[in-house]
Amino acid sequence: MSNPAIQPQHHFDTTNAHLVRQAIRLGLYAGYTAGFARDRVQANICILPRSHAEDFLLYCQRNPQPCPLIARSDIGDPMLPLLGEDIDIRSDVPRYHVFENGAFVEEVTDISHLWREDLVTFALGCSFSFENALVDAGLPLRFLDRGDVAGVYETNVDTVPVGDFRAKLVVTMRPFSAGDAIRAIQITSRFPNVHGAPVHLGDPSQIGIDLGRRYRNVGSSEIAPHEIPVFWACGLTPQLAVANAKPPLCITHAPSSMLVTDLRNASLASF
Amino acid sequence: MSNPAIQPQHHFDTTNAHLVRQAIRLGLYAGYTAGFARDRVQANICILPRSHAEDFLLYCQRNPQPCPLIARSDIGDPMLPLLGEDIDIRSDVPRYHVFENGAFVEEVTDISHLWREDLVTFALGCSFSFENALVDAGLPLRFLDRGDVAGVYETNVDTVPVGDFRAKLVVTMRPFSAGDAIRAIQITSRFPNVHGAPVHLGDPSQIGIDLGRRYRNVGSSEIAPHEIPVFWACGLTPQLAVANAKPPLCITHAPSSMLVTDLRNASLASF
Repeated sequence: MSNPAIQPQHHFDTTNAHLVRQAIRLGLYAGYTAGFARDRVQANICILPRSHAEDFLLYCQRNPQPCPLIARSDIGDPMLPLLGEDIDIRSDVPRYHVFENGAFVEEVTDISHLWREDLVTFALGCSFSFENALVDAGLPLRFLDRGDVAGVYETNVDTVPVGDFRAKLVVTMRPFSAGDAIRAIQITSRFPNVHGAPVHLGDPSQIGIDLGRRYRNVGSSEIAPHEIPVFWACGLTPQLAVANAKPPLCITHAPSSMLVTDLRNASLASF
Repeated sequence: MSNPAIQPQHHFDTTNAHLVRQAIRLGLYAGYTAGFARDRVQANICILPRSHAEDFLLYCQRNPQPCPLIARSDIGDPMLPLLGEDIDIRSDVPRYHVFENGAFVEEVTDISHLWREDLVTFALGCSFSFENALVDAGLPLRFLDRGDVAGVYETNVDTVPVGDFRAKLVVTMRPFSAGDAIRAIQITSRFPNVHGAPVHLGDPSQIGIDLGRRYRNVGSSEIAPHEIPVFWACGLTPQLAVANAKPPLCITHAPSSMLVTDLRNASLASF
């Protein structure tokens, strides 16, 4: 997990989404994308065979908060013109994770050799977009200052299952004072395509959470005495659903190494 | 305090703002206005002499959440054309409270005999408007079902003083589940001219409140174990500021007997 403030120096312009993707495509960069092209949408990627694509599309439609789908490719087409200029999903993500029958197989930096005519790419919004809006509004996200990410928790809340896709809702937690929590709800409500408004606030046990027990130990659980924990749906939910569905093949981005698109974060704001 | 569901039968059309005002002007009605012309804005009224009008205007400007000013009359003019057709503030409010030097003097149903060329009328938005929006969204306001109003509390938070106008912030409390609290924040944020978003949620002691101790014993303090108290700025705040300023004359509406305007609640929504 990475923080723009402590990124090493790079030999390309990290503020330009197209140049970031070029560096990644050429094999010059295979790291975290946090802080790159800060005003542009970064997307979670999930590539599935045709056999599972319709069910996953419907799973996203029925669970829009954890699965905010911003683009689905044409079947077999590695290009994503809806997300930007010359985006080739086979090469433009820094690192990929490959799963077979739900089990992790390998991490690679290019999937051209794995591409098939029946593969379908799903790009989902991520909370980086609304975190930028929170920071721009002056709300404190102390974990960012420490180079950490928001704490991740698995709830006891079922998402709506579709076919073999089923999972408990996974959420991220950000602590705020009451006034800042109200402001954070207002701000994130403007971004339904990147998880939108919180799904819960206050008592964690109401959604089956113990703040000391993070999902895979990811992120910060730190919270000050006067603060309220605020919970947003998390993009790890569809990854969990895919792991449960055990499709013969699934390719995702590696954590924190996302597709940097040309879409502006502000273009996703609903008002 | 009154509930539309338990209002007695009236001999005029209570759904038509103009007819409601006509009945009031003719002395046919002098009761509560809750539930009348439900889609129209009801306004808190404060009439002050010219000597105190500028400071009160600035007090409203500096404290927009408790003092959402929707109209100020011309000096000495009893008509309020910005709020509707043929509104005469001397006769169109069901009951008035008259204060001299900050002390209550009398309740009257017409103030024509008290009108002076130096009087200025202030009309402030009230939470009825956003409560309608909350009910329309299906959020539970159980106190309404009991013919009660939201619990009222004086906080330890200072409003911004102007001249002799100064008061602690007074708030109303409505209890919600976490999910409904998030939705209530979204809905009321659309209505900045009728108190807008909450000012606080969660721990009442952070703003100096003991839920068992209501301001003047007004409203319901009932809250279920799974619920969070959510606090909105209240129109009793400017009344308290006026009481503290002790102007030689002040005329207000009597509690829950408001000016029914022609403005639609929906016209106040900001998006």
